[in-house]
Amino acid sequence: MKDVSQKPDSLRKARATATLHAPASCIDLLRSGETEKGDPLKTARVAGILAAKRTDELIPLCHPLPIHRADISYELAQTHVRVIAEVQTIGPTGVEMEALVAASMAALTLYDMLKPYAEPEDLHIEDCRLERKIGGKSHFRRQLA
Amino acid sequence: MKDVSQKPDSLRKARATATLHAPASCIDLLRSGETEKGDPLKTARVAGILAAKRTDELIPLCHPLPIHRADISYELAQTHVRVIAEVQTIGPTGVEMEALVAASMAALTLYDMLKPYAEPEDLHIEDCRLERKIGGKSHFRRQLA
Amino acid sequence: MKDVSQKPDSLRKARATATLHAPASCIDLLRSGETEKGDPLKTARVAGILAAKRTDELIPLCHPLPIHRADISYELAQTHVRVIAEVQTIGPTGVEMEALVAASMAALTLYDMLKPYAEPEDLHIEDCRLERKIGGKSHFRRQLA
Amino acid sequence: MKDVSQKPDSLRKARATATLHAPASCIDLLRSGETEKGDPLKTARVAGILAAKRTDELIPLCHPLPIHRADISYELAQTHVRVIAEVQTIGPTGVEMEALVAASMAALTLYDMLKPYAEPEDLHIEDCRLERKIGGKSHFRRQLA
Amino acid sequence: MKDVSQKPDSLRKARATATLHAPASCIDLLRSGETEKGDPLKTARVAGILAAKRTDELIPLCHPLPIHRADISYELAQTHVRVIAEVQTIGPTGVEMEALVAASMAALTLYDMLKPYAEPEDLHIEDCRLERKIGGKSHFRRQLA
Amino acid sequence: MKDVSQKPDSLRKARATATLHAPASCIDLLRSGETEKGDPLKTARVAGILAAKRTDELIPLCHPLPIHRADISYELAQTHVRVIAEVQTIGPTGVEMEALVAASMAALTLYDMLKPYAEPEDLHIEDCRLERKIGGKSHFRRQLA
Repeated sequence: MKDVSQKPDSLRKARATATLHAPASCIDLLRSGETEKGDPLKTARVAGILAAKRTDELIPLCHPLPIHRADISYELAQTHVRVIAEVQTIGPTGVEMEALVAASMAALTLYDMLKPYAEPEDLHIEDCRLERKIGGKSHFRRQLA
Repeated sequence: MKDVSQKPDSLRKARATATLHAPASCIDLLRSGETEKGDPLKTARVAGILAAKRTDELIPLCHPLPIHRADISYELAQTHVRVIAEVQTIGPTGVEMEALVAASMAALTLYDMLKPYAEPEDLHIEDCRLERKIGGKSHFRRQLA
Repeated sequence: MKDVSQKPDSLRKARATATLHAPASCIDLLRSGETEKGDPLKTARVAGILAAKRTDELIPLCHPLPIHRADISYELAQTHVRVIAEVQTIGPTGVEMEALVAASMAALTLYDMLKPYAEPEDLHIEDCRLERKIGGKSHFRRQLA
Repeated sequence: MKDVSQKPDSLRKARATATLHAPASCIDLLRSGETEKGDPLKTARVAGILAAKRTDELIPLCHPLPIHRADISYELAQTHVRVIAEVQTIGPTGVEMEALVAASMAALTLYDMLKPYAEPEDLHIEDCRLERKIGGKSHFRRQLA
Repeated sequence: MKDVSQKPDSLRKARATATLHAPASCIDLLRSGETEKGDPLKTARVAGILAAKRTDELIPLCHPLPIHRADISYELAQTHVRVIAEVQTIGPTGVEMEALVAASMAALTLYDMLKPYAEPEDLHIEDCRLERKIGGKSHFRRQLA
Repeated sequence: MKDVSQKPDSLRKARATATLHAPASCIDLLRSGETEKGDPLKTARVAGILAAKRTDELIPLCHPLPIHRADISYELAQTHVRVIAEVQTIGPTGVEMEALVAASMAALTLYDMLKPYAEPEDLHIEDCRLERKIGGKSHFRRQLA
């Protein structure tokens, strides 16, 4: 794990996304919030936030950081749901991995809760990526086509 | 968390994948195993195996299961690496989520170790899905085109 | 940690409760599900289920058990909410502590989410107890007055 | 998880309590420290301190904080024991939940170790509440009757 | 992580030790149980038992096992303390690593609590090893000289 | 857990070691990196780094610290391997325990991966100690003979 003790603390934000593709009937279940395992969007939000805080336990070379904000939001389309994770800290290194872990874990939690309602081949997660990063030596904003 | 106490124990296997896309120079780094953070493929294998064992802590409605086997392998192409996670148990419910969590976490660990060598827009994870599931009420094998 | 290897596996269930007292306006927030931190009842359900699965990490002399079911429900009154945790396993020892930990953690999660809306002296948790236990050497059912 | 990155770091302390009611013979066991599972008061102190440090993993919307002090003390009466948890940090948000989690987990650990010596209906935890909070936008001290 | 799903469950026990060397004045503190951080022997017992249960999170290729018993005992000499960890399960693979992890973590906890009373060069842990293993394909008992 | 809120943050480093003794054939396996469980040196490095970050969960009276660097290196001899853990933080208290935990867990991970290739009596860990500590009220450097 690299030495970050010489790097100054700065405000750092990151936004990452992951998109779960599922049959339209599954997306309807996300809207209604009623599955046999509970409310998927609200449960996945909790899973994503908790995962963000444990990133340094999951990704071996990540530094522990004082997470100052973490949240999950969703964009629902007809046959997919886009999970958006936003994480913020004041620290010596960025929260990109925290945002990516949060988005992935929230998407996988949705997967788990929709699993009884779909065939495995109809559920898959795509386009898990960093969308925006602020702070540190460089800023980055993805160019949307 | 649903009641599985009436379901009989059976041998259950699952195989899941996730594909990290990255510049060719990054894939070369995976081959050489030499990045400033260490050997990515071997580190990500450990991260994936550890994550499989903690799935019930990460995915809220998953049951704890005695994981009998978990492993990570890789298929390297020119501009992507396919992570394959295989998990096995003898238990009352399947290990699909364990395999998906393992593949995702291994792919994210690779991402973290390649991050210093690529622009954020050039790194993304695609096609995270269940490939095969054996045991329980139904068997499933993805039809390859 | 006592030796339970000679004890036979049996179906074991436990039900525990904890009651959070709060101003009526806070109980209304539980009903609407809208606080600045999110939906309290649904978030606390997740917290309780996750805590049940980690009981052996939190209560030092508890044995790890394959939790087969864990769930949280609520009874809302005018100035309190009763949290009910139900846990089930097939194992050599009971899940009383799992149910008590789940009820406590769910009640504390509600507390955390209602905290911005109440004075500290108006929030307190009472009557955290085991209500029912089935399996093992003795059955127990609390006599309701 | 709310954004606390604009809030200044300040010294913050919190004191919380939880009271375990148990038969007098059980309270005697706490005094002697000799149960079949070990010394309850000393074991519960460790459980409470460890739980304080893991509060952000247990209570989903809590921020991780650098805990600077955490301790557990006890007041023994004839048929109950009052657990007092004190937690301290220098951080952007308070440690109320850390103190409440520590008091609850210590009380539940006592419960677990006394369980073999009492009927379930004779063990219950009451009056789990915040007693004092220092730092942040407001100070609070419970008025004792 | 190797596949153990074809291996039959059997009763398995392991005993491991680790010896902390420390000045005689420190060993006296262990006897009295009074250090500024609390009672070392009782605290280290809890740390060792908890570590045994988390072995599969700490040692990457270890399988999760239903720990049926774990305990720590001590042999105090003039300038050292021998930590003995005993762990038991009924499972498809042994608990050697669980016993070694428990002994090591208990010894390190003693180290941490005696640290304020000794120079670093006077504290060291030696002879961390497996002493006895029962169950599985072979039994093993260390020949004492 | 002692109060460190009045202690100033300073740069703190610690180096600890642990030595695993094993048959020469096992040390050769470390060099080749090829065992049935994977590459021991690389796996143990990950285990050590992860353990350093979780020290406050494992050693009850340790404070959580923002680990700024953690790494593991090795010195291979004919019949032993010396594990060296280096940890760094900027904080109010030192990282001695983090370094000792990292060295111990890395050594135990090597033990676990070599276990299939040696008799238990031929594997043991010695000389687990702090070698160097910088920062805080006193500096310390072990005098090498």
